[in-house]
Amino acid sequence: MSLQEVCGRIQPLDTALREQAQARLDRLTKPLGSLGRLEELAAQYVAITGEVKPTIPRGVVFTFAADHGVALEGVSAYPREVTPQMVLNFLRGGAGVNVLARHAGVDVRVVDIGVDYEFGTVPGLFDRKIMNGTRNLSVEPAMTGSQAEQALMVGIELATDAVREGVGLIGTGEMGIGNTTPSAAITAVMTGRPVAEVTGRGTGIDDSGHARKVAVIQQALDLHRPDRTDPLDVLAKVGGVEIGGLAGLILGAAAARVPVVLDGFIAGAAALIAVGLQPRCLEYLIASHRSVERGHAAIFDHLALKPLLDLDLRLGEGTGACLGIDLVCAAIKIYTEMATFGEAGVSEKA
Amino acid sequence: MSLQEVCGRIQPLDTALREQAQARLDRLTKPLGSLGRLEELAAQYVAITGEVKPTIPRGVVFTFAADHGVALEGVSAYPREVTPQMVLNFLRGGAGVNVLARHAGVDVRVVDIGVDYEFGTVPGLFDRKIMNGTRNLSVEPAMTGSQAEQALMVGIELATDAVREGVGLIGTGEMGIGNTTPSAAITAVMTGRPVAEVTGRGTGIDDSGHARKVAVIQQALDLHRPDRTDPLDVLAKVGGVEIGGLAGLILGAAAARVPVVLDGFIAGAAALIAVGLQPRCLEYLIASHRSVERGHAAIFDHLALKPLLDLDLRLGEGTGACLGIDLVCAAIKIYTEMATFGEAGVSEKA
Repeated sequence: MSLQEVCGRIQPLDTALREQAQARLDRLTKPLGSLGRLEELAAQYVAITGEVKPTIPRGVVFTFAADHGVALEGVSAYPREVTPQMVLNFLRGGAGVNVLARHAGVDVRVVDIGVDYEFGTVPGLFDRKIMNGTRNLSVEPAMTGSQAEQALMVGIELATDAVREGVGLIGTGEMGIGNTTPSAAITAVMTGRPVAEVTGRGTGIDDSGHARKVAVIQQALDLHRPDRTDPLDVLAKVGGVEIGGLAGLILGAAAARVPVVLDGFIAGAAALIAVGLQPRCLEYLIASHRSVERGHAAIFDHLALKPLLDLDLRLGEGTGACLGIDLVCAAIKIYTEMATFGEAGVSEKA
Repeated sequence: MSLQEVCGRIQPLDTALREQAQARLDRLTKPLGSLGRLEELAAQYVAITGEVKPTIPRGVVFTFAADHGVALEGVSAYPREVTPQMVLNFLRGGAGVNVLARHAGVDVRVVDIGVDYEFGTVPGLFDRKIMNGTRNLSVEPAMTGSQAEQALMVGIELATDAVREGVGLIGTGEMGIGNTTPSAAITAVMTGRPVAEVTGRGTGIDDSGHARKVAVIQQALDLHRPDRTDPLDVLAKVGGVEIGGLAGLILGAAAARVPVVLDGFIAGAAALIAVGLQPRCLEYLIASHRSVERGHAAIFDHLALKPLLDLDLRLGEGTGACLGIDLVCAAIKIYTEMATFGEAGVSEKA
């Protein structure tokens, strides 16, 4: 299937289904609307999947790992070797995302889409490497257009395969030293905001590191002049392969009528690319949390998404997505397990 | 044990323990502080319980049910018989709190502390009835001082017994048609804010119902002049028995070094009473969510508490507390299950 075909398969949500779901929610033993966003989530889930009597879906978080040439510019607080080290930590189950995934009953699939390290054969690792890290976007395009499209296709195929296996809820995760830099660059281009307004401190750089990061991104935008009406051009020039993988994951899931729970800022940048390619995929997105990373707010404004959690997280990996999936499952249980007024013999509003 | 003895047993948190916990969190494979409020929760849990290597605690939500004489004044959208009907719904497992408790692996204990209905012998119901609903606070004190103290003692005993059985995390819940009215009255007195500013729409009254509710509360405050320096006086004159039970639950849990996860607005009013009686119990509180009920914000400001979730909930019962307990357990798992930099062979910050 081509990228165009996948985008073409994504359908608008069925508003009749959403209303049918809300009508059931309104018959449950609680004041109308009193479970707030849990009710919205349940109705969105029904409208996306078409399951009027849903079962609790199997959830999977995909954690895409890649390196970034721009990390050479001193834009990150951590050395580049941390990317492969953390990949191995994910595979051993010792990272934050593993703990929260186990808590939420979610599987983690770790994908090497562009780490600058040869893992050899490592059990559990999905080897989909496109390149050994992107090129340094401050001096040349991060990737070619063809590599950017390949990254999208990796995500699409992983989502498609997962849904074929019975996965019903997909979360986004990533690991890549330096990857808040391309994410901020994409955010600046796609939202039209100034670079300084969407560039944060990532894993924890100091003031001079932050100033350098803003300057590096501005230099890249001035050099490449990415075209915001062509999201593939933006992804190739100032993006990252894991961001492309995530954007593809969103498109692939939406084409298969599976909701996508977004993690933090990097996932948000991927969502900007995916929505740029096919605006209809927006209705399939659930924002798990508001990251400390400052550009995240600009993404929420631009996409009119409202995060479920505000826990000052800024780890990435898919940690927030795991907590978001847990809330989606809670919402589905409310929808399916609560008694109605009639069943419980409870009097309705006077 | 007397109320004074219980208050006397509540100790300030051990700051050395909190620092020790944060030191471990800082060695885990993540940027410093990048799990935000989950880290704060884990450190608070360790400091409260003294467990340096905590196991996942058994959680229980206590749902106290009671009626309110003031419901006769037309301050609620639902008829009074809904209180006992919902108690039976809780016992059958069909209410919102049951669904979210099962989701979070939490038990629900339903306590009749003052419902105006004779249940007879109902399996699973904790019969601690003090009175058949409070008196109408707009014309007479809701209870006597002795009844208010009895309500506190019921909560203290339930918390103490639960901890003795091995419960390590306590959530608050309630059911009582009309109970946002005494909660708003308590909030106005204890925070010093105007009645209109802390009075919301409860289960969904219209504009004229809301105006009536504000007038009824103002009338009660003018009539009884409750003394904010004497929280027992406030509870007796304009409170409710389930609010007293919840305040006692907080004090009993804190005295036993067990954290309390607060549900919504009514729990907040109970917290104002408990903290009024013993300011030290504040450090044992975890606010699960920000309710739609407008007085809740005034309580958070007054107690300097920050809720974990903002999901537009306004159901009560303990629904938000269940989700909060789920997050506390996630935080404890982060603390105990994540690999350290040393264990995982991951490079630290440059």
